[in-house]
Amino acid sequence: MNTAASGGRRGELELAHRTVQTPVFMPVGTQGTVKAVPQNILEELGAELILGNTYHLYLRPGHELVNRMGGLHKFISWPRAMLTDSGGFQVFSLSALRKVNDEGVEFRSHLDGSKHFFSPEHSMDVQIALGADIAMAFDECTEYPADRTRAQKSMQLTLAWARRSLNHFRANQQKVVWAEEQGRKQNLFGIVQGGMYTDLRRECAERLVEMDFDGYAIGGLSVGEPRELTQEMIAEVLPLLPKDKPRYVMGVGFPDEIEAYAKMGVDMMDCVIPTRAARHGLLFTSEGRMNIKNLQYAEDQNPPDPKCNCMVCQRYTRAYLRHLMKSAEPLGGTLNSIHNLAFYLNTMERVRGELAQ
Amino acid sequence: MNTAASGGRRGELELAHRTVQTPVFMPVGTQGTVKAVPQNILEELGAELILGNTYHLYLRPGHELVNRMGGLHKFISWPRAMLTDSGGFQVFSLSALRKVNDEGVEFRSHLDGSKHFFSPEHSMDVQIALGADIAMAFDECTEYPADRTRAQKSMQLTLAWARRSLNHFRANQQKVVWAEEQGRKQNLFGIVQGGMYTDLRRECAERLVEMDFDGYAIGGLSVGEPRELTQEMIAEVLPLLPKDKPRYVMGVGFPDEIEAYAKMGVDMMDCVIPTRAARHGLLFTSEGRMNIKNLQYAEDQNPPDPKCNCMVCQRYTRAYLRHLMKSAEPLGGTLNSIHNLAFYLNTMERVRGELAQ
Repeated sequence: MNTAASGGRRGELELAHRTVQTPVFMPVGTQGTVKAVPQNILEELGAELILGNTYHLYLRPGHELVNRMGGLHKFISWPRAMLTDSGGFQVFSLSALRKVNDEGVEFRSHLDGSKHFFSPEHSMDVQIALGADIAMAFDECTEYPADRTRAQKSMQLTLAWARRSLNHFRANQQKVVWAEEQGRKQNLFGIVQGGMYTDLRRECAERLVEMDFDGYAIGGLSVGEPRELTQEMIAEVLPLLPKDKPRYVMGVGFPDEIEAYAKMGVDMMDCVIPTRAARHGLLFTSEGRMNIKNLQYAEDQNPPDPKCNCMVCQRYTRAYLRHLMKSAEPLGGTLNSIHNLAFYLNTMERVRGELAQ
Repeated sequence: MNTAASGGRRGELELAHRTVQTPVFMPVGTQGTVKAVPQNILEELGAELILGNTYHLYLRPGHELVNRMGGLHKFISWPRAMLTDSGGFQVFSLSALRKVNDEGVEFRSHLDGSKHFFSPEHSMDVQIALGADIAMAFDECTEYPADRTRAQKSMQLTLAWARRSLNHFRANQQKVVWAEEQGRKQNLFGIVQGGMYTDLRRECAERLVEMDFDGYAIGGLSVGEPRELTQEMIAEVLPLLPKDKPRYVMGVGFPDEIEAYAKMGVDMMDCVIPTRAARHGLLFTSEGRMNIKNLQYAEDQNPPDPKCNCMVCQRYTRAYLRHLMKSAEPLGGTLNSIHNLAFYLNTMERVRGELAQ
């Protein structure tokens, strides 16, 4: 990680499949596809690093199949950088009948009810098999609100799992399918938990830094808490993280949030908002949020965002996008997603420019 | 229409928005979008002429709105050629509680049950407002099977409506939004009906030719009859149509059918099969039909069609397309549709090459 330090920092993240310009926004490709957007368009939009969700890919098509296909990059035809989460968050948010103990989590698939078990070691094996550039330590995402006792216990579990994740990862990371190529290695990031308690967050961050991960994430945010609290937790943790390693805030946020966090010194962010909102007709523009299904756009011949240079704004009108959404046409979700991703990626490009001044 | 005559014929169709190479396959864009495929990709695939459905566009967003937006080409951002059907077929296949009399058809919208009335004159007004390069006469599509009395009565109604369509169209065609541009005119095609009775088909064709349309379509085929009967009806009608005008068989077919009909002398065909089948995982390839959801493709790293040069076959594997379909990801329908359209368009390009020899 090379950065020009300041409140916010402009940097480069050298990963096996791409040197990524930071701060970076990472589109989410849950099941090995950024929903409704072809890969070549993601490339044209300038996406450098996208996410895959370990929980989903483990269940379908299975990490072993992906591995036999040459790993996630080859399987989905994405030559640039990728990151996989640990599966922990989805186990807690999607699966049924979870049982957590010190060893790991037993859960039932949201697809077919089948029984599965994730431990830190198993999450590492799955993520090494998938072979993203960055893997994440297996953590417990503390729910909100959580009282102090609960948050502390959850943070301690996350720390124990972080140590086990790291040990297992270091012993096995050379198994990644593209490891034979010289000088390329898979990275593992630790995840700071601790609920909304600053002292717990600090303790978690300090202990993780002692373990020496390749990068650090702040997890357990954007889980329903007020935005001021999100910002407070980020501000508390960032100064404790090593300057020469990437800092990742997971699962945020709206455009003004990703800009604010980047200017606080966050290097990496991911969020489903741009694509999920798009599929419901919510567009982010230089003029603010726009529900393209509203009647007021029925005969509006302006592009979605007159200041945007994306392929959607260059070609299509608000009237047409509204018609597509009102008619439940799949092209609506695709075009809206392309624009929203362009808006997020352009936002970060602008912020990088400002930070480089 | 300039053609090099033979059984099959290689030609050019000079339309207001495009000189189209024939024989041509026309992708179907029912609601003003070829389902799940962005316009720029259709252009890259070489689509020159696409369909819009009058019934759907009349109901939503409404032909008057489309007209205020500058017509269908501008509304959907498709600068190449377009054709609209008459609305007749969809009224019969989609709407509820139809009442047909000599004047026209009363029907209820499949969207909200609202009551509407289409006459030949109204269909012309709607199609002139939409402003495609080619409009179609309002016809009654005879169901299959239909006895001789029914088929004859239906054919007579179609002939009466053809005359009224033509009169109303000729009196109003200058109202098309792009008419001011010199030398550009909207075309009207007549539609040959007559069920599966060769003498009725002949009578219908001869009477339509006397009316002097800009082109002629054969309708009421691919409605459930055996393929031999389809071919027999086409073979019976084609020789009766003027050599210097385009000949269009509506709503066909599978790849081998469009090739066979093109080689019989058909200039234009449209069909929803490539895109509809794609969304269900059925791919057309040089090796035959492929249900990409089958288990046998789970780890197949070949492109969908090794002999295809489309953007999907150049980038993605069968294993990935299967995963997308099994995961109900919208990208699956998009990529499959792109490949199937490429296969259809490439088939016609090859046929044009053979006919030019």
